[in-house]
Amino acid sequence: MNCKMRGVWAALAVLPGIAAAAPAPTPVEIVAAAPAGAWSTIPAGQLMLVDLGGASHRRVTIQLAPDFAPVHVANIRRLIAARAFEHTGVARVQDDYVVQWGDATRPPPAGLVAHPPAEYERTLRGLAVTPLPMPDAYAPAVGFALGWPVGIDRAAGSAWLAHCYGMVGVGRDMPPDTGSGAELYAVIGQAPRQLDRNIALVGRIIDGIDALDTLPRGSAALGFYAQASERTPILRVRLASELPPGERPQWQVMRTGTPAFSAYVQARANRRDPFYVRPAGGVDLCNVPLPVRRMNF
Amino acid sequence: MNCKMRGVWAALAVLPGIAAAAPAPTPVEIVAAAPAGAWSTIPAGQLMLVDLGGASHRRVTIQLAPDFAPVHVANIRRLIAARAFEHTGVARVQDDYVVQWGDATRPPPAGLVAHPPAEYERTLRGLAVTPLPMPDAYAPAVGFALGWPVGIDRAAGSAWLAHCYGMVGVGRDMPPDTGSGAELYAVIGQAPRQLDRNIALVGRIIDGIDALDTLPRGSAALGFYAQASERTPILRVRLASELPPGERPQWQVMRTGTPAFSAYVQARANRRDPFYVRPAGGVDLCNVPLPVRRMNF
Repeated sequence: MNCKMRGVWAALAVLPGIAAAAPAPTPVEIVAAAPAGAWSTIPAGQLMLVDLGGASHRRVTIQLAPDFAPVHVANIRRLIAARAFEHTGVARVQDDYVVQWGDATRPPPAGLVAHPPAEYERTLRGLAVTPLPMPDAYAPAVGFALGWPVGIDRAAGSAWLAHCYGMVGVGRDMPPDTGSGAELYAVIGQAPRQLDRNIALVGRIIDGIDALDTLPRGSAALGFYAQASERTPILRVRLASELPPGERPQWQVMRTGTPAFSAYVQARANRRDPFYVRPAGGVDLCNVPLPVRRMNF
Repeated sequence: MNCKMRGVWAALAVLPGIAAAAPAPTPVEIVAAAPAGAWSTIPAGQLMLVDLGGASHRRVTIQLAPDFAPVHVANIRRLIAARAFEHTGVARVQDDYVVQWGDATRPPPAGLVAHPPAEYERTLRGLAVTPLPMPDAYAPAVGFALGWPVGIDRAAGSAWLAHCYGMVGVGRDMPPDTGSGAELYAVIGQAPRQLDRNIALVGRIIDGIDALDTLPRGSAALGFYAQASERTPILRVRLASELPPGERPQWQVMRTGTPAFSAYVQARANRRDPFYVRPAGGVDLCNVPLPVRRMNF
């Protein structure tokens, strides 16, 4: 823990381009005004499209994170190609915690790595990190890297994805190498950061999370549904790259190393909208939703 | 920020009665084994029962916090007595943020304080605080008092309720004294701690939050419903003390100053269930749900 964090933060209080004049721009205004160069297009091969049946018939869009969990993401791509998620369902909805879908009991498709390595953290080497100079209850340091919220241990030279709202991980049994990717979960509540470095995170929901978050909670242990009939069916799962070019959704995520992103974080930490009588002066890692935008409709 | 926090925490690593023998009890097991003296019965006059119509016909149970916002809570009791919440509805559901209900445009009942003081914090004097020795991005210190999660500023001699999942607050307009209690909100996502000390918190949902959390998100700005017809109706709101004794639900909350609660917090921070390969060694204030239990059914 760096005891000078608040000092570092204070030094960021006035960023280039963010004048101190009132009224200061809100986080939403900063995102709206961010230049094109502040945005990065998510490759179509990293967009996982989950089409739900049930009452909503909604689509959930997931951005995959091959830079953090390459073996697991490769597995998920194999599972998508084999249509292994289709005609499974959402089997678990635990309030303020996670939803879970898929079926790890099906025969695995060819090439699936049944026991992937525990990709719970990665090396800091080659990773450009934008630190968030705030204390954190779970990690020695926190920040953002490649558009993701991360915990950081500089002494150990490692970084890991953080269990913030919307993050997607790989369900597993007790042994750490037992999650193939055939069952996935998403965080729908207060960030369960105790799971960091205990399970592989592989992406995050960038659109449609409310289609999962509004599902009825399961009444059995851990929020599993007591009856299979309660499960919301999963009709179709594709990578955007599998679709004809004209049908591919295009999404951009804000680059976390840009002045626009720093201004956004700073505004999240020091809200100066007229509503606020006392800006917090700080912000939790998981209270900085990574800005995304859809580029076609 | 106390740079010795992790050291303080380490000193708590072995608590009386929590043997180091494996397998260590889980948080759920600690709660189940807590003695009767670790629990406090919530007075019936502090239980607000909100009966929803719509598809669910569910009850939401709120514990009020008169020790932190006495004028606002007195207002809410007047509003309940005048049936001012009845036949209003849930007007706003913003994903990962708040739900909001009530109607501040109705004529106020007799005795309502139209402009209550900004009860955003209270004195530390006379308040027994159980510190949570963890760093926090929002407050100089955090902990628990009278069964509530609190931010603490010892230098200023003040404490305040924290915007954790399920906490209930009073909607207001831009001026700080404009929330009478006729419109309330509840947190349904990642703790929006930036609201701490900017708005009056008056309680928390102890049962039935999923009846609100699963409502469709509103499509208008800030998650308001575009059409009044989308609102889930509120059929009836009572204090439990208004009901005949035989119909009153009885709830207990764990006393935050007890060894059982300390053991629970410690287990939340250092998960030793077989699933965990790396206990976090820390826990966020809002990742310590305050244990409650219903005593009659």
